[in-house]
Amino acid sequence: MPNPSILILPGDGIGPEVMTEVRKIITWFGDKRGLQFDVSEDLVGGAAYDKHGKPLADETMAKAQEVDAVLLGAVGGPAYDDLDFSVKPERGLLRLRKEMDLYSNLRPAQCFDALADFSSLKKDIVAGLDIMIVRELTSGVYFGEPRGIFEEGNERVGINTQRYTESEIERAARSAFELAMRRNKKVCSMEKANVMESGILWREVVTRVGKDYPEVELSHMYADNGAMQLVRAPKQFDVILTDNLFGDILSDCAAMLTGSLGMLPSASLGAPMANGRPKALYEPVHGSAPDIAGQGKANPIACILSFAMALRYSFDQGAEADRLEAAVEKVLADGVRTADLLASEGVEPVSTSQMGDAVIAAL
Amino acid sequence: MPNPSILILPGDGIGPEVMTEVRKIITWFGDKRGLQFDVSEDLVGGAAYDKHGKPLADETMAKAQEVDAVLLGAVGGPAYDDLDFSVKPERGLLRLRKEMDLYSNLRPAQCFDALADFSSLKKDIVAGLDIMIVRELTSGVYFGEPRGIFEEGNERVGINTQRYTESEIERAARSAFELAMRRNKKVCSMEKANVMESGILWREVVTRVGKDYPEVELSHMYADNGAMQLVRAPKQFDVILTDNLFGDILSDCAAMLTGSLGMLPSASLGAPMANGRPKALYEPVHGSAPDIAGQGKANPIACILSFAMALRYSFDQGAEADRLEAAVEKVLADGVRTADLLASEGVEPVSTSQMGDAVIAAL
Ligand SMILES: CC(C)[C@H](C(=O)O)[C@@H](O)C(=O)O
Ligand SMILES: CC(C)[C@H](C(=O)O)[C@@H](O)C(=O)O
Repeated sequence: MPNPSILILPGDGIGPEVMTEVRKIITWFGDKRGLQFDVSEDLVGGAAYDKHGKPLADETMAKAQEVDAVLLGAVGGPAYDDLDFSVKPERGLLRLRKEMDLYSNLRPAQCFDALADFSSLKKDIVAGLDIMIVRELTSGVYFGEPRGIFEEGNERVGINTQRYTESEIERAARSAFELAMRRNKKVCSMEKANVMESGILWREVVTRVGKDYPEVELSHMYADNGAMQLVRAPKQFDVILTDNLFGDILSDCAAMLTGSLGMLPSASLGAPMANGRPKALYEPVHGSAPDIAGQGKANPIACILSFAMALRYSFDQGAEADRLEAAVEKVLADGVRTADLLASEGVEPVSTSQMGDAVIAAL
Repeated sequence: MPNPSILILPGDGIGPEVMTEVRKIITWFGDKRGLQFDVSEDLVGGAAYDKHGKPLADETMAKAQEVDAVLLGAVGGPAYDDLDFSVKPERGLLRLRKEMDLYSNLRPAQCFDALADFSSLKKDIVAGLDIMIVRELTSGVYFGEPRGIFEEGNERVGINTQRYTESEIERAARSAFELAMRRNKKVCSMEKANVMESGILWREVVTRVGKDYPEVELSHMYADNGAMQLVRAPKQFDVILTDNLFGDILSDCAAMLTGSLGMLPSASLGAPMANGRPKALYEPVHGSAPDIAGQGKANPIACILSFAMALRYSFDQGAEADRLEAAVEKVLADGVRTADLLASEGVEPVSTSQMGDAVIAAL
């Protein structure tokens, strides 16, 4: 049997730096745990634009379709701010999501014990927080047609279309309920059914899917109230299910609550391939952080934990994923800190590669 | 000259209770400060549905068009949850906003000194917070066509349309810059120009309008990052300008940060009428709170401060608005607390009407 395959797309900004640490960890799992992967690497985002004039080459897209998992660093940066919309770095990422049909984006918002003091929120509100946001990732206003800037009378109008079919809602909902079954058996679905018909259909379909999971407690919340409740009392949630646009905003809000933004991974999963594994792309929640790129300051943990998610969801190596997550917890408990994790405690920050080495030492 | 006119729409849930206190305050300004208003009252939301079978009668709509200011309590509640979309209580409010063309929704997010401990956020992050969110209120995905639930192949699809013309963006932007000129001269505009063409047009038009206000420092932020930054460091903002849907979510998030949700007012302003005053509707940011409705527990301050905004923006009574706001601050500093404002300090809560009386006593 061939080794499972991984395509690494480091992307822009701090992407390449954090990915270097992930590569070291992949090598460690090969050497020490006998988990061999076929690793290849390619360009995405601004880096791809610089070479190919577009943010994702067709050959890269084809490769992504074939591998067992894609690991992505980050895309974008000020150098690309003035590019035309159609070739912006983000379009490379959106193309991957859409063409790989990665409809279920899992974004854990987890507060690491050692970092609870680091949140903007009071410690008792976030300590122990462990939410999973399931964001629909291939539809909604990100991809709906018509879209564009059009002439209308003597002015222009900007149009995007929010659009959800029943089957799109259903498959995202199902993945949320499945996850809830392995967690605390609660799903809270968020939309604006009081204002948007797409939200009405969303609520109806989620309710119907919920009937297949009688053990799971399902609730519905308007997305504005959801944002409030995330700040007020985030521990009330287990799994939050929401659409592409609300998910973008609510997951960033939730991530920030934890005080661990440089720590949070994500998995974007699609339908099972021939080998039974879901199509999958893993990436940190943080962006390309151009302000610190190339300085060895970036925190590689979000990207490392994204690889842990790959071990769990793509390679059926739950125990090895646990091992990697435990190593990260240990490193944090030992007080190892990259610059983003320093409050004003007079601890010396470690570099990106020192953090990677510390995780490996703790494995 | 006739007295300025006010239409009171108490609505549902705690709306009538908090509005009773505002009426007392309006009377006080008439008796003690010689500010006479012609006050009329009517139904909106579920209360209107119960009587007319729709959430806003045409005669009420016509009256709202004629008065100098509308004061609205809150709409909605579980009794109306199963109503058809077209007659939901919220539709009454949305009709008022749309037909009065109230394009600029001002939502202050202010942390009252006496309540800083009450926020989920650490005190140093929110103490002294004073942001103004300007939310475009008459367009975007709330009103764009096509919208609805349609058959497509053998399933249904829910569709809403995000839609902004240049002139819609321009007038909302202008109101944000005007406000910034009277504040700290900073505007941060939030959209998703990296994903949505409507966001690209938004950013372009805001940038153009900003050229007319060279003293104002303009920045742009993606809305997901905006949600993060609101939690991380809200004091970086002065005026935030955003669209209808992002504004809904971001303003609720910002309101919750302050720990003063029961305290926050809003003003929705349109174009100047013949008398030079803008069309205007004032309402608390909080909802109808069905769980405590009818129990005399609701905090009337958000609604009282909405009347203070009316004094300022509709009646040119800035000094009287200051007086009312100062009375509220004093009552809070004196430790008067409705139930929503009690942490675990063993203070006895006052009732809705006691809070109203306390504010009047402090005037
Ligand atoms: C980079 C951008 C296109 C992307 C999004 O809006 O989905 C990002 O914000 C995210 O959340 O993954
Ligand atoms: C009640 C509802 C229609 C409304 C909205 O979505 O605008 C509310 O959430 C608000 O923010 O005023």
